[in-house]
Amino acid sequence: MNSKDSSARGRLNVAIVGAGFMGRAHSNAWRQAPKFFDLPLDVSMAVLCRADSARAQEAAELLGWESSESDWRNLLTRDDVDLIDICVPGALHADIAVAALNAGKHVLCEKPLANTVEQAEAMAEAAQRAAARGVQSMVGFSYRRAPAIALARRMVVEGKIGRIQQIRAGYRQDFIVDPNEPLSWRLEKDKAGSGALGDIGAHLIDLCQYLADDTITEVSGTLETFVKRRPLAAPGSGLGGRQAAEGYGDVTVDDAAWFLGRMSQGTVASFEATRFATGRKNELTIEVSGSAGALRWNLEDYNVLEYYDGSEPAVESGFRRILATEPDTPYYHAWWPTGHVIGWEHGFTHQVVDLVNAIASGESPRPTFAEGLSVQRVLAAVERSAASRASWTDV
Amino acid sequence: MNSKDSSARGRLNVAIVGAGFMGRAHSNAWRQAPKFFDLPLDVSMAVLCRADSARAQEAAELLGWESSESDWRNLLTRDDVDLIDICVPGALHADIAVAALNAGKHVLCEKPLANTVEQAEAMAEAAQRAAARGVQSMVGFSYRRAPAIALARRMVVEGKIGRIQQIRAGYRQDFIVDPNEPLSWRLEKDKAGSGALGDIGAHLIDLCQYLADDTITEVSGTLETFVKRRPLAAPGSGLGGRQAAEGYGDVTVDDAAWFLGRMSQGTVASFEATRFATGRKNELTIEVSGSAGALRWNLEDYNVLEYYDGSEPAVESGFRRILATEPDTPYYHAWWPTGHVIGWEHGFTHQVVDLVNAIASGESPRPTFAEGLSVQRVLAAVERSAASRASWTDV
Amino acid sequence: MNSKDSSARGRLNVAIVGAGFMGRAHSNAWRQAPKFFDLPLDVSMAVLCRADSARAQEAAELLGWESSESDWRNLLTRDDVDLIDICVPGALHADIAVAALNAGKHVLCEKPLANTVEQAEAMAEAAQRAAARGVQSMVGFSYRRAPAIALARRMVVEGKIGRIQQIRAGYRQDFIVDPNEPLSWRLEKDKAGSGALGDIGAHLIDLCQYLADDTITEVSGTLETFVKRRPLAAPGSGLGGRQAAEGYGDVTVDDAAWFLGRMSQGTVASFEATRFATGRKNELTIEVSGSAGALRWNLEDYNVLEYYDGSEPAVESGFRRILATEPDTPYYHAWWPTGHVIGWEHGFTHQVVDLVNAIASGESPRPTFAEGLSVQRVLAAVERSAASRASWTDV
Amino acid sequence: MNSKDSSARGRLNVAIVGAGFMGRAHSNAWRQAPKFFDLPLDVSMAVLCRADSARAQEAAELLGWESSESDWRNLLTRDDVDLIDICVPGALHADIAVAALNAGKHVLCEKPLANTVEQAEAMAEAAQRAAARGVQSMVGFSYRRAPAIALARRMVVEGKIGRIQQIRAGYRQDFIVDPNEPLSWRLEKDKAGSGALGDIGAHLIDLCQYLADDTITEVSGTLETFVKRRPLAAPGSGLGGRQAAEGYGDVTVDDAAWFLGRMSQGTVASFEATRFATGRKNELTIEVSGSAGALRWNLEDYNVLEYYDGSEPAVESGFRRILATEPDTPYYHAWWPTGHVIGWEHGFTHQVVDLVNAIASGESPRPTFAEGLSVQRVLAAVERSAASRASWTDV
Repeated sequence: MNSKDSSARGRLNVAIVGAGFMGRAHSNAWRQAPKFFDLPLDVSMAVLCRADSARAQEAAELLGWESSESDWRNLLTRDDVDLIDICVPGALHADIAVAALNAGKHVLCEKPLANTVEQAEAMAEAAQRAAARGVQSMVGFSYRRAPAIALARRMVVEGKIGRIQQIRAGYRQDFIVDPNEPLSWRLEKDKAGSGALGDIGAHLIDLCQYLADDTITEVSGTLETFVKRRPLAAPGSGLGGRQAAEGYGDVTVDDAAWFLGRMSQGTVASFEATRFATGRKNELTIEVSGSAGALRWNLEDYNVLEYYDGSEPAVESGFRRILATEPDTPYYHAWWPTGHVIGWEHGFTHQVVDLVNAIASGESPRPTFAEGLSVQRVLAAVERSAASRASWTDV
Repeated sequence: MNSKDSSARGRLNVAIVGAGFMGRAHSNAWRQAPKFFDLPLDVSMAVLCRADSARAQEAAELLGWESSESDWRNLLTRDDVDLIDICVPGALHADIAVAALNAGKHVLCEKPLANTVEQAEAMAEAAQRAAARGVQSMVGFSYRRAPAIALARRMVVEGKIGRIQQIRAGYRQDFIVDPNEPLSWRLEKDKAGSGALGDIGAHLIDLCQYLADDTITEVSGTLETFVKRRPLAAPGSGLGGRQAAEGYGDVTVDDAAWFLGRMSQGTVASFEATRFATGRKNELTIEVSGSAGALRWNLEDYNVLEYYDGSEPAVESGFRRILATEPDTPYYHAWWPTGHVIGWEHGFTHQVVDLVNAIASGESPRPTFAEGLSVQRVLAAVERSAASRASWTDV
Repeated sequence: MNSKDSSARGRLNVAIVGAGFMGRAHSNAWRQAPKFFDLPLDVSMAVLCRADSARAQEAAELLGWESSESDWRNLLTRDDVDLIDICVPGALHADIAVAALNAGKHVLCEKPLANTVEQAEAMAEAAQRAAARGVQSMVGFSYRRAPAIALARRMVVEGKIGRIQQIRAGYRQDFIVDPNEPLSWRLEKDKAGSGALGDIGAHLIDLCQYLADDTITEVSGTLETFVKRRPLAAPGSGLGGRQAAEGYGDVTVDDAAWFLGRMSQGTVASFEATRFATGRKNELTIEVSGSAGALRWNLEDYNVLEYYDGSEPAVESGFRRILATEPDTPYYHAWWPTGHVIGWEHGFTHQVVDLVNAIASGESPRPTFAEGLSVQRVLAAVERSAASRASWTDV
Repeated sequence: MNSKDSSARGRLNVAIVGAGFMGRAHSNAWRQAPKFFDLPLDVSMAVLCRADSARAQEAAELLGWESSESDWRNLLTRDDVDLIDICVPGALHADIAVAALNAGKHVLCEKPLANTVEQAEAMAEAAQRAAARGVQSMVGFSYRRAPAIALARRMVVEGKIGRIQQIRAGYRQDFIVDPNEPLSWRLEKDKAGSGALGDIGAHLIDLCQYLADDTITEVSGTLETFVKRRPLAAPGSGLGGRQAAEGYGDVTVDDAAWFLGRMSQGTVASFEATRFATGRKNELTIEVSGSAGALRWNLEDYNVLEYYDGSEPAVESGFRRILATEPDTPYYHAWWPTGHVIGWEHGFTHQVVDLVNAIASGESPRPTFAEGLSVQRVLAAVERSAASRASWTDV
């Protein structure tokens, strides 16, 4: 717990842009991090920015920010803003992030880094330039910070599973299985960039590269849209609103994506990202198979890491179910006694903790924008491969 | 989310007594409740009370309370305190709670209600008198507020599992399996009241009575202390400190308790509360078997409710694994999209939400002190039964 | 596989008494054992005995026996019968077994050994006398021969879980939850002896004593009959026949039994045997918790043994799921390659294998009749305890 | 059970070719089928054929066949052979099957149907010609006869899961993860035809087409050999023998295969067949996702079918674990009471039952050779696709 003399410490003034689902999750993380972890800087939740000023003020009060803004450009020149946390849709990431970094603000940017490789490249370049001036950046692949995943990574690094030969990853949801589910922005390419591939497949790619400590160099991919036309949502109805307006519109993104990736060390990874796995709500699973053991995680079973120790005699071996809630489990010392489980949102809190620590120590936080760009390039290569009959395609 | 005009609303000033494990969990709940739920009152985290004034101030800052006190009696006369949240060890509950209620303060009291039936009776009487004056009280059996448990209760009330015939409940931990684990206050009767029985068995009794909507009227119980002497902990070492002082001391509480209860409607419930279930970290399971179906929950698998629907044809029937994270799941609308799981601490937040709503509406919150007393009486009856060779004993 | 020269080997002529559920399972075992295991004797399935001679002949043909008899007494004097396998209801066990042993025939007797302690004592005495003359006997607690259980026993003996402190066992079925399920012989005390206690609880007691290598010395027990009167089955309708005759009859056995046992080394074991666990079809679970680890088995998950190794660092420990189908798994070398699972009936085959090996080597097979008597005494003590308000009662 | 007058019934004289792993499994099935099922023909296990005559005789005795042969051609002219069951390696299937069918013998042929598409085509043509003369043939994809799979198929046909949109199938083993595991015939293309793809992937393809009642029309596939050279096994050491001779040899088949298939109705199916999934012994899983529900099976959990009923309200829905051991479960009436589980070998027994019934009724048994050919064509298309950089390739 926080026991240092705060008067002697530096301060980190944070601004957030966006107040949707991710804005809520990030705000929670900024509120919670200093309550549970001993941070090296005093974090101040200075300002929330949202396009409409009345709604910005309302959101700031609700989510715990001291003030509000309606134009993110104003944040760039404010001396009382040290870090900008970007929680708006992907199409806006590049403009804000590049401007912020150029203005000397640290940046935390939600995943995926951008909607296009070009944008992501510009961001990674800006990040590299900024880093030279001590300005840090991080992309928000928060699943890296689930304690079970952080433990898995530690075990991989320690050699517990040997050389990684294959990885099997899936992110399976079912929220649009019903063909009467109306068209929404998430199903239109010009707004969402891509469908299951970019939305949830991006998480798989990052986890795969993180756990294997390696990069995907070529891919073979296929995209599928099972329901090609959907009823238009009635004006004013939100996502999931069932009062369809007259008429139907085209679904222009993928409902599901399957792809293989080869990594530079020879690992083959298989991926499925789908919104059509009936009965699966948010099932992200990843199994990493090495020459000396294996590890498996399921997001829905957040606190559990499965581990197969290949050095045990076969007659007594099997996957063990580790409840990743021990004092020695990464991040867990700050929470509750053993066995008192935590949830999805805590990964965002850990992300803030690691980011603040990196800023205080002057080290580059991970995942870097370069890592975010790497994910983006894999996504783009999958799309190119899909457009050429699944042919293996360089990243 | 909170959309009402807060200027038109009442205010609820809260004081907390205690800053240990439970003080941390309750503080988190008071901070989080207004951020995620639309509360009918403006909650103010006014004061934290802890015996040592420097440490009280430090804890207040860390946990988010506006001010601190070192003597809980001072809270009784403060006009800016409407509710006292009691998070100190059980031996102190009665004094504080009775005084607070008599002073017109609402009370939230951690479980178990007290260390003795006599104390609990005094508290329940004070609560009843206070209720007549609109002063509310609640005992903190927070597992009732796990979404999966609240859903289970709703399904029982709707008749989904018919008449309940038997219940199987267990709370299994293993933190003192090692005989070299030193003696601590938790293992001494004069400090802890009882061992596994009161500490974790109390949760089982409350869940059983809550889910069955019935009370246990007689019990047969057995207590066991497997390791009867343990090394003394070195002075200054905390719970779990391994630097043993010279010598050994007697363990004066139960390591494990097994008991049966008969309920007024004929249900038979079996219970195991143990600290010697090697490999089980915090495994609270309860299975409720009815004439038309069954329900099962495991605390370590917090977001899952298992349900057997006896009306299905046998050939297609089986326990189904409900991921209790839907918009219609109790409490869940306030959190995240489907499948983004929550954790143990959230039950405390829901407890605060329900308490604040009850206070605003003038209704009596549950579990009442009378319900807490009922649990206490069952615990006492188990001890009497154990002292008479497990003979069935009236509660 | 069987590679020895059979001409040089002895012969074992087997007779079976009974052709019901157990007669079918035992016949299968006698047929299969020589096909998969290299037995030291040539087994001949000589004769099947059943009360009605036409039905006896029919059953013999169907189940693979060379001839038939209608009176078991005739088996005693036949030179071509070396072993009598008793598969009739418990009330008849003692007469047949004692006569068979006295006549110099080896005996395999289905569990429970008898319906009363007195009968079981007579049988154990006869077995002891017979053993002195090289005539062997065995009681059919076949779950000892599930590969996962045999592996568990081996691990206990090797010290893998240290000193056993507590055991949790349950045998949970639901086939009479429906109150309209008619009365059957299984629900009448004069025919069945007892209900869930003797039928399925006996298995738990034997497994507990086997895995712990210890005996239960005192018990506290409670019996319950949830549905006290049931419709009479129409004449001629079998078990489960739903055409109720007019009128109702009393259920005179227990629907469920709960009991605790203390073992001579200090282990406390808890037991639940019930026919009212809605949704549970044949769920026999046993978890053995020791000072250095734990083991768990579930009959419905026949090939899996769960193991917790307490010597692992906590942060990486957890119950592992051993698929007990390796060449080194007890009994498994004779079956299929790793991962090609076997089922419930195979335990009976292994029982035959062990019995034939014991007979050939002149060693006493286990479980002995003395062990069967021990189970019987525990059952009787549970009934006595239940009759004295669950008071702890010596076995 | 078998209650008909056998004298009035026809006879079916069976010959088996091969006495290895599959010969043992098929022999067991022929022995067991008439003991548990009421067959319309009297099955006679007439002759076992194996290349070496001494070993043929030994195997015949051990496995329960009345006589032996050392040349399968001799079977063709024997009047006392009605059916030939082919259990030799795939390279020999075509010659034997075509000759047998031409000679008027019914044929059961182990999977895969053949090592090449050309052979399989010849076999399917022979089967079609033979069928016109009342001579039946069947390919041994025995997993269709697991009760849980047969139940799944029934539920699909009844519309329980609606229109099938995607299927996820994997067959994962780990027996050659160790790079020191020596080269064996299974790892040489000229002997085994292919590696994981043909050996275990073939099962996935058949199950997929069977459950979806549809055929795969195009594929995209990738093959990988992780360990490209392995130590040579010492002469005389069996499969898995570790005494390596001097030197290393090339692995010429795939260690793992991943492929996608599109079916004629629009379903997309993904497949993984691997021998490098560390910790997975024999994990065949298939999940079928439809517009109204989903089904999932795991071979290692043989008796369980998981089912998601999409018509349930979301708040109470979830995958249910059906223990497929009810009297109404396909095939299960013949075995044991509910909850007494069966194993892998039983699927072969059911295969025999269905085959004998088809022969007696004159109906064509399934899977037909045409279905076996269909699997073969998919395998070949996967290899072609893999050779053209995973490009989508017509079957």
